[in-house]
Amino acid sequence: MPEPIRLSVDCMGGDHGPSVTLPACRAFLDKHPGAELILVGKPEELTAAAAWPRCRIVAASEVVTMEDPIEVALRRKRDSSMRVAIQQLKADREGNPALAHACVSAGNTGALMAVARYLLKTLDGIDRPAIATVIPNQRGRFTTVLDLGANVDCTAEHLLQFAVMGSALVAAVEGNEEPSVGLLNIGEEAIKGSETIKQAGELLRAAGAAGQLNFFGNVEGNDIYKGTTDIVVCDGFVGNVMLKTSEGLATMIGAFIKEEFSRNLLTKFVALLALPILKAFKNRVDHRRFNGAALLGLRGLVFKSHGSADAFAFEQALARAYDAARNRLLDRVHDRIVATLQAKANDAGDNAANSVAQAA
Amino acid sequence: MPEPIRLSVDCMGGDHGPSVTLPACRAFLDKHPGAELILVGKPEELTAAAAWPRCRIVAASEVVTMEDPIEVALRRKRDSSMRVAIQQLKADREGNPALAHACVSAGNTGALMAVARYLLKTLDGIDRPAIATVIPNQRGRFTTVLDLGANVDCTAEHLLQFAVMGSALVAAVEGNEEPSVGLLNIGEEAIKGSETIKQAGELLRAAGAAGQLNFFGNVEGNDIYKGTTDIVVCDGFVGNVMLKTSEGLATMIGAFIKEEFSRNLLTKFVALLALPILKAFKNRVDHRRFNGAALLGLRGLVFKSHGSADAFAFEQALARAYDAARNRLLDRVHDRIVATLQAKANDAGDNAANSVAQAA
Repeated sequence: MPEPIRLSVDCMGGDHGPSVTLPACRAFLDKHPGAELILVGKPEELTAAAAWPRCRIVAASEVVTMEDPIEVALRRKRDSSMRVAIQQLKADREGNPALAHACVSAGNTGALMAVARYLLKTLDGIDRPAIATVIPNQRGRFTTVLDLGANVDCTAEHLLQFAVMGSALVAAVEGNEEPSVGLLNIGEEAIKGSETIKQAGELLRAAGAAGQLNFFGNVEGNDIYKGTTDIVVCDGFVGNVMLKTSEGLATMIGAFIKEEFSRNLLTKFVALLALPILKAFKNRVDHRRFNGAALLGLRGLVFKSHGSADAFAFEQALARAYDAARNRLLDRVHDRIVATLQAKANDAGDNAANSVAQAA
Repeated sequence: MPEPIRLSVDCMGGDHGPSVTLPACRAFLDKHPGAELILVGKPEELTAAAAWPRCRIVAASEVVTMEDPIEVALRRKRDSSMRVAIQQLKADREGNPALAHACVSAGNTGALMAVARYLLKTLDGIDRPAIATVIPNQRGRFTTVLDLGANVDCTAEHLLQFAVMGSALVAAVEGNEEPSVGLLNIGEEAIKGSETIKQAGELLRAAGAAGQLNFFGNVEGNDIYKGTTDIVVCDGFVGNVMLKTSEGLATMIGAFIKEEFSRNLLTKFVALLALPILKAFKNRVDHRRFNGAALLGLRGLVFKSHGSADAFAFEQALARAYDAARNRLLDRVHDRIVATLQAKANDAGDNAANSVAQAA
């Protein structure tokens, strides 16, 4: 029998805290007999879970709020549930192995990224961690997009790293070993992309030619929803705007549909008939199903749930973290990064050798 | 009786050329008795319009295709319908006034911007023209967004200029003299925006405090659809991704709705009943209704239609250009820019005076 997968959960994070995280944990445990949970938070608020199977409570006296600045999360609240939950991913000072394989929090993104980075450090070869999520596409599958807001100014090198990490994520979680990568760019317009984007395109093409990843080429915003590539890479500013814009548009469309169907008695009657159809539609675009963004590039698996997640959504984030841990995402990111670095070193070596040969 | 408003139309531009632009012009003329048109293109393809009222055909022997690089549009095709149409906005060498008040083309954006900029030049105080469009929002009104792809790398100063031009546009076309301006930024994340965005925020705040524009503050992607502000300012890369992403998501949602309603006989029957409701909904989000982006910051009014526009959509672009010309958009942009420059010059003068006073 395989070793159980153990998740540490920041039970206090997010807009709702234990009233959402505990029911989600309970539902998750019922559906994943191979999973164990470490519930981190104020013990008095977690008593409901005291007698649950495959479950352990770890006390933390403080809570990072959604408004806390990064400095507070990093330096002042040293016994926060967020920090203690991430701490479970580290070996202790006596060299005992980490207690958890992955950590899930709905706490504020900036604080989570900062604390995770401080405690876990980045993998060799990664300058900056990135946030990756999946977005449903028209092919009935998912597009993985990164970065979503961890990095506002990215170099071409960073974008290459995102592509490598994204490839590892899709390979691990979706079993697609050669996922295609698109570089988010603007299309028909005058100047196709900034200098950074052009350079990133060259780096990605080279990495593709060397067999380190499956580079498709430039893609545009609509390709994310078309599902043109498995992965779309962009800087965090653009990624964040893209995601928030999508949320805004989806909300508006939902509101418009509702308004049109509740305009008068007749339309309300039709709405009644159309209910199962509207429900099926709603389910397909329900962003709660896709909750759980991966913080990639750290020496530990951290997943971020939407702050406003309900129990159903938080459970999806737990499931996503579980799948990633079970499929050894951390090792895969590490291996891919090492391979890319190795290839680059060889390239540099070849170039040096060529230069020597030419000089001779 | 007021002087008629005259539009020059690049009848050959876009994916479909005269088969779309001519019916659109015809419908537009019927609805706007105060308008006149200058139809530019290959005369043999415009014969249908020969006998139309308030209408004149100007011959142009070449066509800029959707694939033509900027260089071809600028230097090789000197008798293109696009170029000749824009030329109508200029006074001739003998000092006779311009023949048209605004120009409309569905030709390729990069070429249109380059040719317009070359022929018309930018207004004093404007470094770079911008592309502005309206997007429907949840309040049942419109959000004006710029830039949408003319400028991939923007300075803080450029973003301020966009805000001023956008304010003039909304004031002219929607009669809202104090439209609110939001700076597109990312929200909850660690570092709120790049250095450029932070600087732009300061410039906009200062301009707001000086009464030159109505600055709301930072907004996020979802605020565009919420209608939090009348205007949202961003660089062209972000704006283009935002727009294309929205198109992609709207298309996907439309396809999903269609799929769910055509799943089986029963759902098809319900679809039949729901048809008027679905039509009303579709009409509200129909992007054809919002066709016609303004190229702002030039010494002439140029409007860009979507390349794939049908006759209905192209007619909307004509109507938008007509409204802008009728409401003296060009003068308004000019006046606002002058006021902003003047205020800055005074500020600089005050600072210099203060320095002198302090030194004394």
